[in-house]
Amino acid sequence: MHNDVIMRITNYYRILNRLKGLGLEKVFAHNLGDAAGVSAALVRKDFSLLSIKGQKRGGYETEELITTLGNILGKGSEQNVIIVGCGHIGKALIKYRGFEIDKMKIVAGFDTDTSLQDYSSSTPIYPMSELKNKIDELDTNVAIIAVPDTATNDVYKRLIDCGIRGFLNFSPITLKNIKLVDGTTTFVRNVNIALELEHIFYHLNHQ
Amino acid sequence: MHNDVIMRITNYYRILNRLKGLGLEKVFAHNLGDAAGVSAALVRKDFSLLSIKGQKRGGYETEELITTLGNILGKGSEQNVIIVGCGHIGKALIKYRGFEIDKMKIVAGFDTDTSLQDYSSSTPIYPMSELKNKIDELDTNVAIIAVPDTATNDVYKRLIDCGIRGFLNFSPITLKNIKLVDGTTTFVRNVNIALELEHIFYHLNHQ
Repeated sequence: MHNDVIMRITNYYRILNRLKGLGLEKVFAHNLGDAAGVSAALVRKDFSLLSIKGQKRGGYETEELITTLGNILGKGSEQNVIIVGCGHIGKALIKYRGFEIDKMKIVAGFDTDTSLQDYSSSTPIYPMSELKNKIDELDTNVAIIAVPDTATNDVYKRLIDCGIRGFLNFSPITLKNIKLVDGTTTFVRNVNIALELEHIFYHLNHQ
Repeated sequence: MHNDVIMRITNYYRILNRLKGLGLEKVFAHNLGDAAGVSAALVRKDFSLLSIKGQKRGGYETEELITTLGNILGKGSEQNVIIVGCGHIGKALIKYRGFEIDKMKIVAGFDTDTSLQDYSSSTPIYPMSELKNKIDELDTNVAIIAVPDTATNDVYKRLIDCGIRGFLNFSPITLKNIKLVDGTTTFVRNVNIALELEHIFYHLNHQ
């Protein structure tokens, strides 16, 4: 599937779980479109590509649709994420509870600053020297990078050496996917907050 | 210019300011490409579209390139941003100092929780009832939304009524650009952290 389609299907899945939580037994393409910021027509098109059919009178069974999309997305047990860099942004992400509904959990943080270390918290923060040990122990291959720009590339390489393959990068340095000697390729999503803001200002100034 | 080109030019501009800060008087397409996560060929192509020429022996004068790109991007005085929702993520953004190098500043926060209010901080946090007054006073048209999902659409509408037109939305609800009766259109960038993580997991599970 194309990246855009995967992102939309993932979003429908997340929205469906929330609608189910609100007690909705049936949903319409319009509901999903509204919540996902796309047209109902596009929702129907995405579903038709996946051979998902609606009911005769319109709409979809919420529960059934969640199961179908979950199977397509390979949803199963909880997925563990670690975070490197526990400054303001890193700590906020550790405290953020919005991941749980999607069965994702930040299981550990890492930082060079020893004053941030905390072994007893529900999400412990370890020194960087523990990186390799803990990653092996925690069985995860996805990391959030929230370190200052000068440390970004170094941390990226260290995490790759420890077996991490998926990266959500909040630093202002753009990281590239790298094809590794073991045949795998890293997968990075860069979230550059300052760049997003600049883009908004540019757009408004040139409207 | 196409959105992708604007994002890249904005990124080159940000990188150039950092390289200048490190003392680099001359930069090469390769330097910009490496830092921006694109090829040197694409950097040259972008510059050629903007009629920017390099030096005979290769490379560009850093200072000159900053001025040229700054003019294209309409860079001038500091640009003010407000933030609505001062929970974990909102507060982390207020404390984040990475915007200053790009002449952007979060000038005020707003929250319904009165215990978060703080009129004396360098970035004061006001109650929501002050929204209209403060936006008029602060001369801004860009807002970051970092409120819980159930409040997102309501906050979006209130901000539009107060004259905000550019939005960086961190809530899990996707907001759409809206064409308004005054002829302007809102411009929203949605940053959905959970969705980005899900996308990474999907990709790794299907590699």
